[in-house]
Amino acid sequence: MKIILDLDTGIDDALAIAYALGEEQAEILAITSVFGNINVKQASMNAAYTLQLLGHNHIPVYKGVEHSLDTTYYEQKQGSKICHGENGYGDLEVEHTSFCEDKSAVDYLIEAANTYKDELTIVATGPLGNIAAAIQKNQVAMKQIKQLVIMGGAFGVRGNISPVAEANFAHDAVAADIVLRSGLPVVMIGLDVTLRTLLTRDDMSEWKQYGKAGSVYRDLVEYYIQAYEKFNPQLKGCALHDPLAVGAALHPSFVTTFPLCLQVMTDKDSLGRVVIDKEAMSNGVPRTCHVALDVDAQAFKQRMLQCIEKVFQNVTE
Amino acid sequence: MKIILDLDTGIDDALAIAYALGEEQAEILAITSVFGNINVKQASMNAAYTLQLLGHNHIPVYKGVEHSLDTTYYEQKQGSKICHGENGYGDLEVEHTSFCEDKSAVDYLIEAANTYKDELTIVATGPLGNIAAAIQKNQVAMKQIKQLVIMGGAFGVRGNISPVAEANFAHDAVAADIVLRSGLPVVMIGLDVTLRTLLTRDDMSEWKQYGKAGSVYRDLVEYYIQAYEKFNPQLKGCALHDPLAVGAALHPSFVTTFPLCLQVMTDKDSLGRVVIDKEAMSNGVPRTCHVALDVDAQAFKQRMLQCIEKVFQNVTE
Repeated sequence: MKIILDLDTGIDDALAIAYALGEEQAEILAITSVFGNINVKQASMNAAYTLQLLGHNHIPVYKGVEHSLDTTYYEQKQGSKICHGENGYGDLEVEHTSFCEDKSAVDYLIEAANTYKDELTIVATGPLGNIAAAIQKNQVAMKQIKQLVIMGGAFGVRGNISPVAEANFAHDAVAADIVLRSGLPVVMIGLDVTLRTLLTRDDMSEWKQYGKAGSVYRDLVEYYIQAYEKFNPQLKGCALHDPLAVGAALHPSFVTTFPLCLQVMTDKDSLGRVVIDKEAMSNGVPRTCHVALDVDAQAFKQRMLQCIEKVFQNVTE
Repeated sequence: MKIILDLDTGIDDALAIAYALGEEQAEILAITSVFGNINVKQASMNAAYTLQLLGHNHIPVYKGVEHSLDTTYYEQKQGSKICHGENGYGDLEVEHTSFCEDKSAVDYLIEAANTYKDELTIVATGPLGNIAAAIQKNQVAMKQIKQLVIMGGAFGVRGNISPVAEANFAHDAVAADIVLRSGLPVVMIGLDVTLRTLLTRDDMSEWKQYGKAGSVYRDLVEYYIQAYEKFNPQLKGCALHDPLAVGAALHPSFVTTFPLCLQVMTDKDSLGRVVIDKEAMSNGVPRTCHVALDVDAQAFKQRMLQCIEKVFQNVTE
């Protein structure tokens, strides 16, 4: 399966990269970066550094949009800083690498959609600015893809940035609305399922043996777990938001979905809230948004750990 | 199918009664009444009068709980008054009838559950006080029933009494939470699907010929439509909340559901909001709440109108 990862590389995005690289049937074509947990330049650097760390620096990184569709600048949110650090990478050192292609992420996405058509899966785990811009620029091209698997939204659960909204959707609600109403085949991996996954310190016990990659990842996850513990001291772990989107893309059986027409609210009080688009449903618009409502968290985590350890092992050898 | 209707008989409850009476495979055992659109005494009278009007005054009415579990009194909400009138019956005259059995609704529900077990369907279209009280009194008995079909809740859509809550669940959130977490086999017919049904004045064009019953129902629905038009002038009709619960009980194919563990929030800001019970899901608790997310509104309305007209016809002859 040909995959583009569209990331605002913070900590769980880095886990998603390692996991995806370890899935043999996944061919990672590129990473497109987007503002979100951090600004887009830092997101690109974090992605490129992660690829280098894991021995995959042949995979290109394309820089994407810098801010949400309805603003003119980016500012890191307090929650992002707490969860991912000021540099999005647990405030670990991120080595400078020659990190970006000249082509923009948006143009690359359209080109890839035209080249690979229904062989192409896009996994998007940040705000949806790149995808929305690509759809606005060439919807016909983008609609050819096999699927767009999104980490974002809170459908039947409370949000994490407001009582009704999840952070990725809230950080660019206009973009999220464009994407969900575009007719693209979407799988929505929201807090409904991601909050039912949990990575603990015990799960990382094997990582010690894997040199620098294992060590960096342990530090990253430790940072993330400590952030989680500030809000839920009893949790003793962190949710696997972004990796679950990779998991659902490659193993549809990890989640159970329901097909709907969805929209994202953009008014101040409901910013980023995802709801059923009743009008579209009543008008017979195809239900192209498959919202995940149940998850086999155990099977997913087992597979993810297996893949990540394989990647660590390969880079250590 | 043996059915008990648990109603706070306002206007759409009256439609639900007429519809249920017209379904040949439905045997309506009783109506249990509950506070909600109006106080429980008026709810009981409205139910008894409706049965009399439709020539079915042999069906008993049992009076249920008077107020929500966390209050000590009932007060009609402004929204209920606007939609259903001060007497819950569009302010039409409701003839006094010898209207209630001595037994309480709660005891009757338990007795019926023990008698009919998995042959019994309960359709509940008001606040869930009676059902919660019956569960608290005898959960083992209540868990024997075939299904509890509830009109209530807003899962993937905005609420109608607050941005996050539907009125029935908000009017007795503690009761709703008890019921949804009880393990009873629940079908939740919420605003997700009921707001996609619409009864218009044109749909009632045949009712003129059916004497008093047809005339009363036209006046009721006219009142309801006018209330709807206050909020949505462009709608030109009213939603069929309560009748859809009857429809889903008798024709499961009218809706598409997803099995979940659900809970209802009881804090002030989220009062009555229904969300996924993530903890129960993660602990492998059986997913006994089937939440309706899609509806064949046309097939449902056609069937409902057919059944209602048959009832009008029988009482006219």
